[in-house]
Amino acid sequence: MVKPIIIAIDVMGGDNDGSFILPGLALSYVRNPDVRFILYGDEKKIQKNLLEFKELSEVSTIVNSTISIGMAEKPGLALKRGRNHSSMWQSINSVKIGEADFVVSAGNTGALMAMSKIILRTMANIQRPAIAAIWPTIKGESIVLDVGATIGADANQLVDFSVLGASMAQSIFNISRPSVSLLNIGVEEVKGLEQIRDASNILSNNDLFFNYQGFVEGNDIGKGEVDVVVMEGFNGNIALKTAEGTAKQISEYFKSAINRSLLSKIGYFIASSAFRALKDKMNPSKVNGGVFLGLNGIVIKSHGSTDPIGFASAVDLGIDMSRSNILDKIRNNINDFRLLQ
Amino acid sequence: MVKPIIIAIDVMGGDNDGSFILPGLALSYVRNPDVRFILYGDEKKIQKNLLEFKELSEVSTIVNSTISIGMAEKPGLALKRGRNHSSMWQSINSVKIGEADFVVSAGNTGALMAMSKIILRTMANIQRPAIAAIWPTIKGESIVLDVGATIGADANQLVDFSVLGASMAQSIFNISRPSVSLLNIGVEEVKGLEQIRDASNILSNNDLFFNYQGFVEGNDIGKGEVDVVVMEGFNGNIALKTAEGTAKQISEYFKSAINRSLLSKIGYFIASSAFRALKDKMNPSKVNGGVFLGLNGIVIKSHGSTDPIGFASAVDLGIDMSRSNILDKIRNNINDFRLLQ
Repeated sequence: MVKPIIIAIDVMGGDNDGSFILPGLALSYVRNPDVRFILYGDEKKIQKNLLEFKELSEVSTIVNSTISIGMAEKPGLALKRGRNHSSMWQSINSVKIGEADFVVSAGNTGALMAMSKIILRTMANIQRPAIAAIWPTIKGESIVLDVGATIGADANQLVDFSVLGASMAQSIFNISRPSVSLLNIGVEEVKGLEQIRDASNILSNNDLFFNYQGFVEGNDIGKGEVDVVVMEGFNGNIALKTAEGTAKQISEYFKSAINRSLLSKIGYFIASSAFRALKDKMNPSKVNGGVFLGLNGIVIKSHGSTDPIGFASAVDLGIDMSRSNILDKIRNNINDFRLLQ
Repeated sequence: MVKPIIIAIDVMGGDNDGSFILPGLALSYVRNPDVRFILYGDEKKIQKNLLEFKELSEVSTIVNSTISIGMAEKPGLALKRGRNHSSMWQSINSVKIGEADFVVSAGNTGALMAMSKIILRTMANIQRPAIAAIWPTIKGESIVLDVGATIGADANQLVDFSVLGASMAQSIFNISRPSVSLLNIGVEEVKGLEQIRDASNILSNNDLFFNYQGFVEGNDIGKGEVDVVVMEGFNGNIALKTAEGTAKQISEYFKSAINRSLLSKIGYFIASSAFRALKDKMNPSKVNGGVFLGLNGIVIKSHGSTDPIGFASAVDLGIDMSRSNILDKIRNNINDFRLLQ
């Protein structure tokens, strides 16, 4: 019998009091009946809310915690106040002590990263962690990192991120030799950044387990021509949020176009199945979940304002990564890479 | 009688041999019958092509030039080869010597910026130039800068860009006290960049001719809640291109949704006027034209792969800016600002 995957959940993170969390777990459990949950949060409240989810409650253990981290709390303060006793800390710690295979939180990103670094520590041979996002593309999905963990990454850190991202691609896309590019600005522009060119030189001059394909620009990410796009964290955060904002802006345009006249409403109704497919493609819930890479444990950050479908997809992502032993993959890949250099 | 605006055009820039340039000028001329053009490029070719545009030919002078700058040519090389004799150099120089009010080129961005800096020089009290783009938003349009001129701008340069962008907003949006924000990453993130925080402090502590509104994130740009969004050039280029890529990706999704079934085609046909409005909103030609700000002259960079409508809108943008005496506005604003500090 296969050992079930155990998932630690920070039930106190997220907007709207995390009301999407238990319904999300119930959704994911239907798809993954071999998992178990440890729920960190206010025991009484969780027990009451679990009454609606009988099957989920049968595979869940509750660990009482009454300290929750505020969504806008500064990471330093959150660390001080939340050390040892907050639901966020305890849920991360359960991964550290081997009680859980991974943790999911929809809480404060900065606090989650700060606690994760202290509890799980950065992997040997990796300088700094990264946050990886799944980016929907015309061809499917790509992994984009770093989207906000390491501001001002240098050449070696960008190389580390390439190894981390490529390992994640092996793990969740199930491909042995993923393709990787570095994000840069156009050849026609005045100049790029030195650290990106240096990282490119390192990646070009090594025989790697992934296929390094040079630079891409911002407008290339959505084309999906590479499996992994690597960048420094500030740029990655700007790119991710700008893409989200643009998608939202266009759906506003779309809505107002549809509501423009009776004729447009009729047309929309007739074509509604096609537009459902379109909406489905543009649904941010489908690809919810930023992964903290480079730590000795898997931490999944859900969007704070997601819905049950989104939270379930963040959980599913962690399950995929646990099943494929991503931490071992990263350790082997980074060791092989260091031997090469 | 009002003196006509004279526009220098680099006819040798752009993809597809710049085939959109003369048709674009003809379009703009219909809207602006009081302008005149000086066309820099291969005289024989231009003369032949002008036969199709009788009215345009009557208000155009041709200056023969046979050296064109390649779209992918490195700026340093382009400068060496194109100095004095290329159509790009000559058209910029006509602004310097007062023959033209502004110049439009669809050529190589890096070369155009390098030549513009040498010929026109950076304005007094401005350290480095910026490229400003018009960004379509839910509420209308915003000015976004820098989108690629100054990589690694420091706090003072970000402050300069705020003054430049706000002056441009006064000029083309015709508002006396524009609102300005700095692009940053979320408060919940690990940390922002020091130079952005420093710029914010300078802007917060001065009584300005614009309304400084603090930070926005990538997903806020499209909301259009401020008139001007300021950032360093590498980030700006990534943001602009990522937004363009996302818009293109969604229109691909849209096209494939429409072509999915007979029913969806019928629905689309019935609602087609609404979708034309949507397409119109998403048409990148409508807001074509990056403006080089901070130089002693107006240089408009058109997209290299635009169409006649796009090229005409780049020309129109320059006309608006010339009519409102943007250079005087910038000089006054920057002097007032320096006196305050």
